[in-house]
Amino acid sequence: MDERVREHAEVLVDWSARVEAGDDVVVSVAEDAHELGVAVARALGERGANVTTLYGSSEVSRGYLKGVEAGTDDAVDADDFDSDPAVDRAIFEAADGYLRIGGGRNTTATADVDGDTRRAYATARKGVREARMDTNWVSTVHPTRSLAQQAGMAYEEYQEFVYDAVLRDWESLAEEMAQMKEILDDGEEVRIVTERDGAPDTDVQMSIAGRTAVNSAASVAYDSHNLPSGEVFTAPHDTAGEVFFDVPMTIDATRVRNVHLVFEDGEVVDFAAEAGEDALANVLNTDPGARRLGELGVGMNRGIDRFTDSILFDEKMGDTVHLAVGRAYDACLPDGESGNESAVHVDMISDVSADSRMEVDGEVVQRNGTFRWEDGFER
Amino acid sequence: MDERVREHAEVLVDWSARVEAGDDVVVSVAEDAHELGVAVARALGERGANVTTLYGSSEVSRGYLKGVEAGTDDAVDADDFDSDPAVDRAIFEAADGYLRIGGGRNTTATADVDGDTRRAYATARKGVREARMDTNWVSTVHPTRSLAQQAGMAYEEYQEFVYDAVLRDWESLAEEMAQMKEILDDGEEVRIVTERDGAPDTDVQMSIAGRTAVNSAASVAYDSHNLPSGEVFTAPHDTAGEVFFDVPMTIDATRVRNVHLVFEDGEVVDFAAEAGEDALANVLNTDPGARRLGELGVGMNRGIDRFTDSILFDEKMGDTVHLAVGRAYDACLPDGESGNESAVHVDMISDVSADSRMEVDGEVVQRNGTFRWEDGFER
Repeated sequence: MDERVREHAEVLVDWSARVEAGDDVVVSVAEDAHELGVAVARALGERGANVTTLYGSSEVSRGYLKGVEAGTDDAVDADDFDSDPAVDRAIFEAADGYLRIGGGRNTTATADVDGDTRRAYATARKGVREARMDTNWVSTVHPTRSLAQQAGMAYEEYQEFVYDAVLRDWESLAEEMAQMKEILDDGEEVRIVTERDGAPDTDVQMSIAGRTAVNSAASVAYDSHNLPSGEVFTAPHDTAGEVFFDVPMTIDATRVRNVHLVFEDGEVVDFAAEAGEDALANVLNTDPGARRLGELGVGMNRGIDRFTDSILFDEKMGDTVHLAVGRAYDACLPDGESGNESAVHVDMISDVSADSRMEVDGEVVQRNGTFRWEDGFER
Repeated sequence: MDERVREHAEVLVDWSARVEAGDDVVVSVAEDAHELGVAVARALGERGANVTTLYGSSEVSRGYLKGVEAGTDDAVDADDFDSDPAVDRAIFEAADGYLRIGGGRNTTATADVDGDTRRAYATARKGVREARMDTNWVSTVHPTRSLAQQAGMAYEEYQEFVYDAVLRDWESLAEEMAQMKEILDDGEEVRIVTERDGAPDTDVQMSIAGRTAVNSAASVAYDSHNLPSGEVFTAPHDTAGEVFFDVPMTIDATRVRNVHLVFEDGEVVDFAAEAGEDALANVLNTDPGARRLGELGVGMNRGIDRFTDSILFDEKMGDTVHLAVGRAYDACLPDGESGNESAVHVDMISDVSADSRMEVDGEVVQRNGTFRWEDGFER
């Protein structure tokens, strides 16, 4: 076995999920993530944990959803799914940890599933999703040829890209990110401005009063659930203005480019996309919370050196900020407050490496991608 | 998708598992069983069932067990495993049905796991196994290159072999098998005699008084849990005599050939094998029940025309009888009686196509493979 696969498994189990002897850990293994699944099972056995392995196959999901479509007379709605499926609920209520290892054979495997069906399924599965998020969950990927293709990279090149992002000195990155967390924790209002051809194309402001930022250092000990990570994020509210997202992405197997959102009184009141506008509309129409922001994130992982059309990596890249419509993470909210609720959480990214600034309470904290504690920062 | 895969899925879901709308069905998909997993998910979606998909990978199991070995100072024993793993227990307590789709990439994937470790794991997992067997469970395989290799066949040839065995007229086979069930239900004592070179090499008798035979027609409606099936089996007791099993098999990834067992007072008191005797010893030493019989089965599926080193097929083949050491199936036992208990259930097969007879209460019911209701039967 490639030594990097073994190291990836150990970072995932020890640093990220903080697995201890006796823990019940559920591992979801995607179609081509077998090697990492084996290495993770071995690490869990060594730690004295119990392992249950799910098969996280997009083609199996598509098969199931197409079957539901075939078995339903009209368009599929949430009532066509069981909102309290006994086994899935039982799994996540009993689990201490959940390790999701992505890495399928085709990132567009569910492209021909109807938008109504997807939305209905996401709505019906809200309870299961919430039970899953109450565990020590971590999402990672095993590098596959399919993901390399989505990234536009050769397979070995992509493997190096993934391990450069994953096998890092997480403690030292966590220390650097603590500075941004402090700024956001103390701040009340964030404004982001970017320009294109000399005119503003993003000028948006949002409140972060009363919210707590997460220093997302790829470990549940930091309320961070992605490996790799390397972002600081919070849960904004009362958003107003316009945002242009110039980093391409894939939503529900559809390529989406150049999204433009207009916010008034905290809600998206107008939207457009140069490609994939229907997929975007499906997201925004899921439920009322899908039109409000659930996240503002600042990418700080400079080990990620390019966009690969994968949100797991893209949103962590240095020189980017991202906003997500939909569900807010509990970790950002005061105790007992629910924040924005939604069945979806979809991140969208802006490149801020040039012609940009982020202000917190009127003070510039990042300009053209450089943070205020870094060399070369222009106030 | 190969139309035969879709048909296999439909036989599995409808005839075998009798899935109904609203059922919670757990599907275990082996490493190379993806295609059938997709087809089964689609069929379950059409029927309105919930689906949870497990990854049934032998390499993941090996990884876990090797990890436990590495994390344990001395030899692994049952105390090194959690005998009540919360997630696995919750899954099978909540499930209505369990569909196990075999078909890995290497049938000897766990060959280097220590025998003590295997035995300890089997012992610790008894509770989970029993919860699983309380569901509507069915075990089948997707034809893979690995299984073709084990069978000594080309891949396409093996696919045809599997679908010939699986895609049958199960109702009509069930009617024929009902005759054998009636004989065993009414009988009190079974004697099996085979000769080799003119001298008896098997001469064994056992009581079946008070036991109920299962007409194993590949459906939970018949208390039958294998697809394909095509055998009639019961739970014998008080076995005495000698048995020679001339059909090769694989136990715990070890090839085992020409097993000889000697029974006294219901227990194995002596054993030998020309190959794989250690693997056989591991089985027999699992627990006291592993030395008593749990099953007598009569193969009646004449659609299976050769041995393929897979118990799922071999034990169903016409012209064979088999005995299993270990656990008895509840369906064969009077209500409230537990029968033989064990953490294992290992079948061993004798070819009875020539020089053989099976007697029930002194009357010959099968001679040289021909049943008494068939043309050419010699009383």
